Amino acid sequence: MEKIDQVIASINPLDEKAMLEAKMRQDNLTKPQGSLGQLEALSIQVAGIKGDARPRIIHKVIFTLAADHGVTKEGVSAYPSEVTPQMVYNFLRGGAGINVLARHVGARVVVADLGVASLLEPYPELKDKKVALGTRNIAKGPGMSREEAIRAIEKGIDLVEEELPKGIDILGTGDMGIGNTTPSSAITAVLAGTDAATVTGRGTGLDDEGWRRKVRAIENAIKVNRPDPKDPLDVLSKIGGFEIGGIVGVILAGARHRIPVVIDGFISGAAALIAAALAPQVKPYLIASHQSVEQGHRIILEHLGLKPLLNLDLRLGEGTGAALGIFLAEASVKILDEMATFAEAKVSEKT
Amino acid sequence: MEKIDQVIASINPLDEKAMLEAKMRQDNLTKPQGSLGQLEALSIQVAGIKGDARPRIIHKVIFTLAADHGVTKEGVSAYPSEVTPQMVYNFLRGGAGINVLARHVGARVVVADLGVASLLEPYPELKDKKVALGTRNIAKGPGMSREEAIRAIEKGIDLVEEELPKGIDILGTGDMGIGNTTPSSAITAVLAGTDAATVTGRGTGLDDEGWRRKVRAIENAIKVNRPDPKDPLDVLSKIGGFEIGGIVGVILAGARHRIPVVIDGFISGAAALIAAALAPQVKPYLIASHQSVEQGHRIILEHLGLKPLLNLDLRLGEGTGAALGIFLAEASVKILDEMATFAEAKVSEKT
Repeated sequence: MEKIDQVIASINPLDEKAMLEAKMRQDNLTKPQGSLGQLEALSIQVAGIKGDARPRIIHKVIFTLAADHGVTKEGVSAYPSEVTPQMVYNFLRGGAGINVLARHVGARVVVADLGVASLLEPYPELKDKKVALGTRNIAKGPGMSREEAIRAIEKGIDLVEEELPKGIDILGTGDMGIGNTTPSSAITAVLAGTDAATVTGRGTGLDDEGWRRKVRAIENAIKVNRPDPKDPLDVLSKIGGFEIGGIVGVILAGARHRIPVVIDGFISGAAALIAAALAPQVKPYLIASHQSVEQGHRIILEHLGLKPLLNLDLRLGEGTGAALGIFLAEASVKILDEMATFAEAKVSEKT
Repeated sequence: MEKIDQVIASINPLDEKAMLEAKMRQDNLTKPQGSLGQLEALSIQVAGIKGDARPRIIHKVIFTLAADHGVTKEGVSAYPSEVTPQMVYNFLRGGAGINVLARHVGARVVVADLGVASLLEPYPELKDKKVALGTRNIAKGPGMSREEAIRAIEKGIDLVEEELPKGIDILGTGDMGIGNTTPSSAITAVLAGTDAATVTGRGTGLDDEGWRRKVRAIENAIKVNRPDPKDPLDVLSKIGGFEIGGIVGVILAGARHRIPVVIDGFISGAAALIAAALAPQVKPYLIASHQSVEQGHRIILEHLGLKPLLNLDLRLGEGTGAALGIFLAEASVKILDEMATFAEAKVSEKT
């Protein structure tokens, strides 16, 4: 816990001076003020995060964290748990959605095992951060111990800090874990103070009967475990997941090292809820890449006060939305850095 | 007019077989079916346009067309008309928003003078397609003759056809013309059958008084000219603009050569309205990159049945939104082409 406390204590507010300078520059570029909308605001946010009025984004990293979920025993997912390790291998071979989109935006993907329920074949590129062989069934009792929750967050912090020497100018979060919209819905219900049905979607493609089973599992998870909404670690340990804990660590470490944190969809959003509950000062470091089809995601974004950049009806996870968000963040800082000012281009200003 | 008729007669429906094959492949890629939302639909559309179930996008071109508008005499713009040529030079020197975003997405920008109100210095990269030295004031009479409207469309067709030898796998439309939200609003009011105030926004930044002047100018333009909504050329000539006519030609030529046409914001949308009125079969070739802040743009998109990919509060024009849309279209076909199937990756399918 000491490591987590140290990281949280080192998260500083954004650099107001850099933001003011970036704003002044935006207002002098050869375009009507504000005409690039959210891209302008985004560039100013990135300037504040990095403490640089003309930041550049060269090194882009997406952290895709995998784990399994005992709650799949309740029949809450359309896919079997064996898909989690199969998709990890797919990531490592470059054939998944996140690989394609990361290549498209020039980002590297860091794949980590936080708690897959089987021993994975060693791959040089796979980060072994396994805390346990999956969570226990949260519908029957706590998914993990408090110590394991702490360990998952710490491993997420380590992931970012181990990548720092290679350079990280912006990071995206991603997840893989069959069944993980169930703990994410449970976390959202508890931390946003809503009921299970409101935050529960169809995940990878449940039918009506499956959706009702999932809602019941989430209701049971909350009833059996009574997670304390004022204690984010209690929530994570009782009704969360290892990849969710790892993403909490990635978010905290990103903010601590002044790296813009592009959050992906619903699972990353649930992790952001926990991170912001542990350390409200992470919020200005967060960039919401997109609004997921999962209905709980909208509630998360509202709760965190975030406006999504994209609304493309995505619901894949892995960091795919984050990859697209990273592209837009990069576009925004290039606008700030590369456009000519009215004076430079000898363009007349507003009359 | 013969050239326009020939182009229109050569626009074919999308290739259903390529679309079906693309859909089947999307459904076999290692992700839950439909989980990449609009990106999946977009890849299938591009497959149908190009007649290729696994299309690739290498050559990306944004056509940015410039012209001036006599209606600026009515005080309808926050910027003086001299900004139009100044911005053309800015485009040619690479300092404008469209240059930055085109570089970011790997697209080339073709800058053309369709009707700037002054003689421009020759630049090797500038396409001289000037029809006239700007439109006349549409609030007092027709902006151009019917022959000039035809000429503007033909020059837009020429622009695309002259670029074909260098390769165009996808194209984006863009505009520059101080005052051009006024004709665009007038066109939208007439072709979508609404009143001036409903489709009139603040352009580059009008205050309340300026907005009222603009609404009056549009009302006058419609009252004085009585454009015939059933005759798109009558609408273009009486209340349009030369860059708008040129973009109509770019759209028609794109569809005729089976090139996906990514339309930018409000001005490109007004051109798309005219193109679709001339040739309804262009509609499936259109991709709406974003929804502009300009209130008339939502009406255009609804009228054309298009769902925008982005909603970033953009209102710059130049093709900036189209550049971002091109990036998303490219992402969508890379997903289709590069992702592994369930069988290839040995991933279990839905239970």
